[in-house]
Amino acid sequence: MNIATIIKTCPLFAGVTEEDLEFLSQVCKCRSHEKGEVLFSEGEKALGFYVVGSGKVKIYKLSPEGKERILHIVQPGMTFAEAAIFGNGLYPAYAEPLQRSDLLFFPKREFLQLLHDHSQIAINMIGGLSRFLRQFATQVEELTFKDVPARLAGYLLDLAGDEGMRVELPISKSQLASNLGTVSETLSRTLRKLSDDALIQVQGKVIDILDRDRMEDLASSTKEF
Amino acid sequence: MNIATIIKTCPLFAGVTEEDLEFLSQVCKCRSHEKGEVLFSEGEKALGFYVVGSGKVKIYKLSPEGKERILHIVQPGMTFAEAAIFGNGLYPAYAEPLQRSDLLFFPKREFLQLLHDHSQIAINMIGGLSRFLRQFATQVEELTFKDVPARLAGYLLDLAGDEGMRVELPISKSQLASNLGTVSETLSRTLRKLSDDALIQVQGKVIDILDRDRMEDLASSTKEF
Repeated sequence: MNIATIIKTCPLFAGVTEEDLEFLSQVCKCRSHEKGEVLFSEGEKALGFYVVGSGKVKIYKLSPEGKERILHIVQPGMTFAEAAIFGNGLYPAYAEPLQRSDLLFFPKREFLQLLHDHSQIAINMIGGLSRFLRQFATQVEELTFKDVPARLAGYLLDLAGDEGMRVELPISKSQLASNLGTVSETLSRTLRKLSDDALIQVQGKVIDILDRDRMEDLASSTKEF
Repeated sequence: MNIATIIKTCPLFAGVTEEDLEFLSQVCKCRSHEKGEVLFSEGEKALGFYVVGSGKVKIYKLSPEGKERILHIVQPGMTFAEAAIFGNGLYPAYAEPLQRSDLLFFPKREFLQLLHDHSQIAINMIGGLSRFLRQFATQVEELTFKDVPARLAGYLLDLAGDEGMRVELPISKSQLASNLGTVSETLSRTLRKLSDDALIQVQGKVIDILDRDRMEDLASSTKEF
C-alpha cells in the first residue's frame, strides 16, 4: 500500500496538502509486523507513533495478576500512541497486532523537527483536527439527544440542501448506518418506517422527500429519556 | 473574566503551556457584544475566529425565503468560525449573540503568524487536539454500542482502577449524566437499578463496588439493536 494513501486516510492528517504529504512520507517508515509481536510495552519511553495501514492492532494493559484488559482495537487509517509523543511521554499501554499488519511509524524526533521546520504543516494539521473536533462534538450531541429516525431525517435534509426534494446517497447503506451511529438492520427498518408514513420514497440509493415539513419536525425532535 | 482563563477552557487550546498562553493572550481581543448584534454574515471574508468567554452565540443560515435555520448554539469555552480561517475561507453562516456575551476574537493574520513564529505552540495545540479526538472517538463508539448501564459500569471501574472497590464521584451527578451522554433522571434510575441488583452500594457521592465480576460483564455488554 502507498504511504501517501495511508496518511491521507488518517484524521490526524486531515488538513495536510499534497506538498505536506511529501515531507510526511519522507519522515515515516513503513513496516510489516506479525501477529503477536509486541510493538511496545507500558512504561517504555515513547519513540514515536503509528498509523495502521492494514490489519488491526490491540492496545491493552495488564492487571497486577497479568490479566489482559483491551483498551481499544486500532483499525486501518487510525493512529495510536500519538498522544505519548507530545511532551516527554512514556507509552501508556502495550500494543500488539491481532493479525499481520502494515504500519507506518513516525519517529518522535524527526516528526517534531519536521513540524518545527515546516510550521505550515502544523497549521494545516490544526485546521483538519479542529474540523474533526467540531464534527465529533455534533455527533456526540446527536447520539445523546436524537434517536435514529431524527438523525436520518437530519442527514437527508442536509444532503438535499435548502430546496432539494430528491437525494442520492453518496455512500453505501452500511456506511450510512455507521455514520448515523447505528447498524444496517435499524437503518433499513427506519427507512421503511419513514416510507410507510409517506415522508420519503426510497428507490435503491435515490430517496425522494415527500413531506419536507414533517421531515423537518422529525429532524428537530429529541429522544425521550 | 481573565483572557488566559477563557483560553484555558477551550478544547482548541487544550495542549498549550503557560508560556504559550502569554503569546495567545497578546494576539486576541476581548470584546463585549450585545444581544442581536450580527458578528459576521454568510459569505463574508473570514477575518478571524472567536472564543465564547460568557454568554451564548447562535450560528445560523438563512433560507432563500429568509427563514432562519440555527446550526448550533455556541457555549462558553467553545470556539466558532475557526475552520474558516484555515485556507482562504469565507464565513459559512451568520453569528449573533443570544444575550450579552464576552468574546475573544483572534484575528486570522496575527494568529497564523504567531503559529508560524512559535511552531511549538502549534505542536502543543496538535497534541491537545489529538487527545480530544481520541476521547470523542471513544465516546461516539460507546454511545453507539453501549447503553447507559454499561457506560456507567465502565466509568465506575475506570475510576476504581485495577484494584479499588470504593470510589468517590469527582463531579456532580448532573455533570456525570452529561459525560455519559444521558440525563439526570436516567442516571438516577440506573444507579438505583445497579443498587437493587447488588452490584454497587451508593451513599451520596461514595459508591462501593460490591461485585466486580458482574460489573465487568455489564461494562463490556453491548446494546441490542
